[in-house]
Amino acid sequence: MELAAKACPFLRNSTPSALRSLSQKPKTAVASNGLVHMAQQCPVMGKALTIQARSAMMTGCPVSSGARHFSASAIKAKPAKSQVLGYASAASSNDLKASVQHELHKANPAPGAACPFKPVIPASHAVPTAGKPFDYEQVYEAELQKKHQDKSYRFFNNINRLAQQFPRAHTAKPEDEVTVWCSNDYLGMSKNPVVVETMKATLSKYGAGAGGTRNIAGNGAMHLELEDELAALHHKPAALVFSSCYVANDATLSTLAQKLPNCVILSDAMNHASMIQGIKHSGVKKMIFRHNDTAHLEELLKTLDPSIPKIIAFETVYSMSGTIGKVNDICRLAKKYGAITFLDQVHAVGMYLTVLHLDFTDNLNRPQNSPVQTAMDQVDIISGTLGKAFGVVGGYIAGSAALVDMIRSYAPGFIFTTSLPPAIVAGATASIQYLRNSPHERIAQQTNTRTLKAQLAALDIPVVPNPSHIVPVLVGDAEVCKAASDELLRSHGIYVQSINYPTVPRGEERLRITPTPGHTDEMMGHLIRSLESVWQRNGLKRTAQWKAAGGRAGVVEGAVDPAPIWADAQLGLSAAVLGHHKAATTPAAQITLTGQATAQL
Amino acid sequence: MELAAKACPFLRNSTPSALRSLSQKPKTAVASNGLVHMAQQCPVMGKALTIQARSAMMTGCPVSSGARHFSASAIKAKPAKSQVLGYASAASSNDLKASVQHELHKANPAPGAACPFKPVIPASHAVPTAGKPFDYEQVYEAELQKKHQDKSYRFFNNINRLAQQFPRAHTAKPEDEVTVWCSNDYLGMSKNPVVVETMKATLSKYGAGAGGTRNIAGNGAMHLELEDELAALHHKPAALVFSSCYVANDATLSTLAQKLPNCVILSDAMNHASMIQGIKHSGVKKMIFRHNDTAHLEELLKTLDPSIPKIIAFETVYSMSGTIGKVNDICRLAKKYGAITFLDQVHAVGMYLTVLHLDFTDNLNRPQNSPVQTAMDQVDIISGTLGKAFGVVGGYIAGSAALVDMIRSYAPGFIFTTSLPPAIVAGATASIQYLRNSPHERIAQQTNTRTLKAQLAALDIPVVPNPSHIVPVLVGDAEVCKAASDELLRSHGIYVQSINYPTVPRGEERLRITPTPGHTDEMMGHLIRSLESVWQRNGLKRTAQWKAAGGRAGVVEGAVDPAPIWADAQLGLSAAVLGHHKAATTPAAQITLTGQATAQL
Repeated sequence: MELAAKACPFLRNSTPSALRSLSQKPKTAVASNGLVHMAQQCPVMGKALTIQARSAMMTGCPVSSGARHFSASAIKAKPAKSQVLGYASAASSNDLKASVQHELHKANPAPGAACPFKPVIPASHAVPTAGKPFDYEQVYEAELQKKHQDKSYRFFNNINRLAQQFPRAHTAKPEDEVTVWCSNDYLGMSKNPVVVETMKATLSKYGAGAGGTRNIAGNGAMHLELEDELAALHHKPAALVFSSCYVANDATLSTLAQKLPNCVILSDAMNHASMIQGIKHSGVKKMIFRHNDTAHLEELLKTLDPSIPKIIAFETVYSMSGTIGKVNDICRLAKKYGAITFLDQVHAVGMYLTVLHLDFTDNLNRPQNSPVQTAMDQVDIISGTLGKAFGVVGGYIAGSAALVDMIRSYAPGFIFTTSLPPAIVAGATASIQYLRNSPHERIAQQTNTRTLKAQLAALDIPVVPNPSHIVPVLVGDAEVCKAASDELLRSHGIYVQSINYPTVPRGEERLRITPTPGHTDEMMGHLIRSLESVWQRNGLKRTAQWKAAGGRAGVVEGAVDPAPIWADAQLGLSAAVLGHHKAATTPAAQITLTGQATAQL
Repeated sequence: MELAAKACPFLRNSTPSALRSLSQKPKTAVASNGLVHMAQQCPVMGKALTIQARSAMMTGCPVSSGARHFSASAIKAKPAKSQVLGYASAASSNDLKASVQHELHKANPAPGAACPFKPVIPASHAVPTAGKPFDYEQVYEAELQKKHQDKSYRFFNNINRLAQQFPRAHTAKPEDEVTVWCSNDYLGMSKNPVVVETMKATLSKYGAGAGGTRNIAGNGAMHLELEDELAALHHKPAALVFSSCYVANDATLSTLAQKLPNCVILSDAMNHASMIQGIKHSGVKKMIFRHNDTAHLEELLKTLDPSIPKIIAFETVYSMSGTIGKVNDICRLAKKYGAITFLDQVHAVGMYLTVLHLDFTDNLNRPQNSPVQTAMDQVDIISGTLGKAFGVVGGYIAGSAALVDMIRSYAPGFIFTTSLPPAIVAGATASIQYLRNSPHERIAQQTNTRTLKAQLAALDIPVVPNPSHIVPVLVGDAEVCKAASDELLRSHGIYVQSINYPTVPRGEERLRITPTPGHTDEMMGHLIRSLESVWQRNGLKRTAQWKAAGGRAGVVEGAVDPAPIWADAQLGLSAAVLGHHKAATTPAAQITLTGQATAQL
C-alpha cells in the first residue's frame, strides 16, 4: 500500500482526512464516481483493493466496507449504511463472509492493517497540538480501532423474528430462516395474539404515537391503566412508566440519591449498566459489594453512620449468569442498617411469582380472602421491563406513592420525553394481564430450560450453574466465542449471539441461550447436535477441562447445580404432563394443573 | 386536627410514619378496612375527613387523595393509583374538581395544611440525626411539598387522542370529547393511514417487541432501513436510532465529550433538558452562551485554546418559544474556531426543508441531476425525533460514519437497552417517506399557524413572536396559567396545557398552542373565541399591557413579527389555494402547487 500511495498523484497530494471524508459517502455521487472509482481504475490500487475487500471484510473499517461496493461479483447486498458500520448482514454471512471467515480467524490480521485510508492511530496521538485545529475524525477512528484491537467491536446480526413462526426469524434475505435461541422475548409474548390484536385495535383507535410528554398531551387512560396494573403486580401503591428500564434505572437512582442528603449507594458488583449509570449520574458516594456477598455488604454497611440514607441496589436474576440475588438476606441487612432497597427485576418479571417465590408456599396455603403477603413488601423500590417476558417495550418502577410521585416530579429522564405510544402501553397491559392468568408459557419455558441444561451436562458442554431460565454456555475467549456464534448461524441455522466484554468480564465470554415456550423438541435436538458439532470441530473446552484448569465463571470443581427457582410442585405439574406445555402447539384444555401456579403472578 | 389527634388513642400512640404508611396503601385490605375505616367511624375524624376531602382535592396530598375513596357520593371515579398521584382526571375536572377549583384558586390554601397525616416538613429537617435511622418518606414528602409551594407540581390531564377524529380526544370519560391544541403530533402523522397500516402489518408479521438489544436479537432489516432513511434525509453518511431523542442527546453528548480529550461544550442557554443532562453527564467543562447570541458565543470561543476540541450545542427550532437558531452564523464560528456543531432538530424535522431553508432557493434552481447542496453539510451532528412531526416514537443522530460508529460502540444508553419494536421503526420509516412526498400537511400547518397568529394579534392577545409553527400565548404566572388551561378544558372543550417552570422561566408561563393540518376553520374560530373569553373573564394581560409594563418573554415594545420560515413562494402556494390544505378534508387532486416544495424534504 505504501507503493500505491507513492505511485498515485491523487493519494499523494490529498490529506488523509479528505480521503476518509470522500470514502465515507457511499450514497452520494462523490463516492460512486469519485475516489473509489478512480482507485478502481488504477492498476496498482485496483488490484490492492480487490485483495483488501476480501481480507478486510470483517474488520469494520469504513473504507474497507465501502470497498465492498466495487469489489466485484461476490457482493450482492444493497449498498447502504448497514455496510458502512459494523453490521454483519446475514447475506454476507452466507456468501462472501462465509468463504473468508475461517481463514480470517486463523490469520488474525491486525484490523485496519490492510487499509490505506485508516492509519494506525494510538489514542495518545489524539492529544491536541497547540495552535492546530483539533482532528475529531481521528479520535473517532482511534476509538473504533481500540474496539477492533481488543475484539470487542460489535457486528450486529440482521435478525427479523417472525411472529407466525416464533422462534424462527429470517436474516437479511427473507428466504434465509434461522431459529433464534438468544432472544429476551422469554415467553414469546411478542407474538401472542392477545397482545398483537390489542396493539392493532389501539393503533386504529388512538393512532401511532402519544404526541407529547406525559405532561403535555401524552398522558392517557391507557398509561394510567398500565401503571395501576404494574403497581398491583408488585403489591405497591404506585408505579411509573419510562421509555425503557435503562431510563427507569438511570433516572430513578440518580434523582433519588440526589434528593437524599449525604446518600451512599451500595451496589452489587454485577449490576446492570443502567444502574451503574444512574449511580454515576447521581454523583453520590458509591460502594461496590462483591456479587451476592452479603458478608461483604454488611462489612461496608458497618462503616457507615446509621443515620445517613443508604440505597442497596441489586437484581433478582442476573442477566448474563442467570444467578439470583439474595433478596431475603439483603432486605434483612437493609432493615438492620436503615437502608432502602432498589431491586432490578428485569429478568424476573412475568416469569417468577412475587420475588423469586420466597413466599410461594405461604401464599398458596393462606386462608381464603386473607390478604396476600409477599416478599415484595420487603423491597422498597422495584424496577422492571415491558420488553422481555412481557414482549413489548418500555420500563417502570414501583414503590411508595410519595417516592413515585417525587420521581415523577423531578426526574428529567421521565419528564422531558415523549411518552410511550398508546398501542405500546395497551399491549403491555394486555400482556401482563394474560400472563397473570396463563401458566403455560412459564411451564414450557422451565421444562425446556431443564431439558437443555440436562442434555448439555450429559455432553460435558460447560454451562454457568444457575437456577433460572438462562443457559450461559461458557466459551472463555472473545474471538472464539464470536466464531462459534457465526458458525452456528452459518452452518446450522441457529442464532445465539456471542456475549463478549464489556457485557461480561474478559475470559468469561459465552453463548447465552434462552429457551422459550415455542422451542420444539426437534429444535432442541438440533441445537444440542449443533453445539456438540461446534465444540468438536473447534476443540472448545468441556466442563471437565475448565474444572481441571481451575475453573472459570462459576464452572468450577465441586459446583453443584442449584435447584430451579420453579419447583415441580410450584409449577403445579405432575410428571405425566411435563413436556406438554409447548404453548404454541398444546391446547390449554389438554393441560392438567395440580397446583395453583396461576393464583398470583 | 390537633384536637382530633389528642382525642384519638390510635393517632396519639402511632408514629407519623406508621400512619403515613398505612394510609398509602389504597389497594390493600389494610387501607380499606384499617386506619381510614377507623377514622371514618370516629365522630371527630370522620367529619374532618369529609371536609378535607373536598378542600384538599387539588393539593396532591396522597392521604387527602386517599380520602377520596371514602368521602362519599361526590367522587365517582374508580379508586386507582391515578388518584394517589397528581393526576387531574377529566372526570374529576368535570364534576367535583370543577366545583371547588374556583374557590381554591381564590383561597389559595397552603398545600397539605388541612391534612392531618402530612406534617409541614421544611426540607432542612430532612438532614439526618446521628444514630436514628433515616426517614426516607419524609424527604419524598418534603420534596413534593416544594413543588406544591412554588406551584410547579404537575397534574397530568387524561387525554386520549382519537385517530379517526384527529385532533379530537376523549378525556377520562370516553363520551367527553375535547379538541387538542397542544400536541407535538405536529402534522397529524400519528393518525396517517399509511403509518398506521404499516405498523399493523408489521405487528402481524414481526410481532410486538424487538426482543433484545441491537446486539442481541434486536437488530433487524427495518432498523437498518430506518437508519438509512434518516442518513439520507439529513445528507449524512450514517444515522443511529435510540429509544428517544432524550436518550440520543444524553448518550451522544456525554459519550462524545468524554472521548474528546480536554473537550469544552458551548451550550445555548435555552437548550433542551436532554442536552443539558448529556453535557452534565459528560463531566467536561461547559460554557453557556446567551440564547442565539453569536457575539457572546464568539467571546467565549476566543477564550479557548484553538487546538482543544469544542462542541457547540444548539437547536434549530426552540420548543417553547418557537424561535430559531442562527445556524449559518454558528456554523461559521465553529469553522473559525475549530469546533464541531451538535444541532437538535427535534422541532424542525419533517416540517422544514434541510436546515431551515437556508439553501432552499439554491436547491430549487440547481441544474438537473446535480447533487443537492445543503446547509446540513455545515452541521457535524444532527439529532432528531420520530415522535413529533413523524408521529411515532424514538430518536436518532446523524453524522459521519466514524462518529456514528463510535457512539454505537461506546454509548451505554444505546448499547444496553431493548431496541425499538419493528412496528415502531417501520412506522417511522413510512412516515418519513410519506412526508418526503407530501407537502399538504406542512402547507396546512403553516397556513393554520398564520391564521391563528394573525387573529390573536388582532385581539391583542400576547404571542411570543417567532417564525415557526409554535404559538406561545404569554400568561406570565404559574397559577393563573394553570387556571386558564383548566378553564379552557372545562368550559370550552379545548385542551392546551399550561407550560410552567421549570420548562419555561418563572414569570414566562404560557399556553403553547400548536396548530396542525387537522384543525378546521370551525375549530379555529372556537379556539379564538374561547381564548378571548378566558382573557376577558380573568382580566389576563394583553400585548399592549405587557409592552407598557416593560415587556416579557419577547413580547416587548417595538418587537417585529419575524417572517415565517416558510415563505409563500417556498410553500409553492398561490393566494387562491391558501386554506385549501386541510389534509383531512381536501383531496390531493384539488391542490395546485406552483413550486417544488416536495423536492427535498
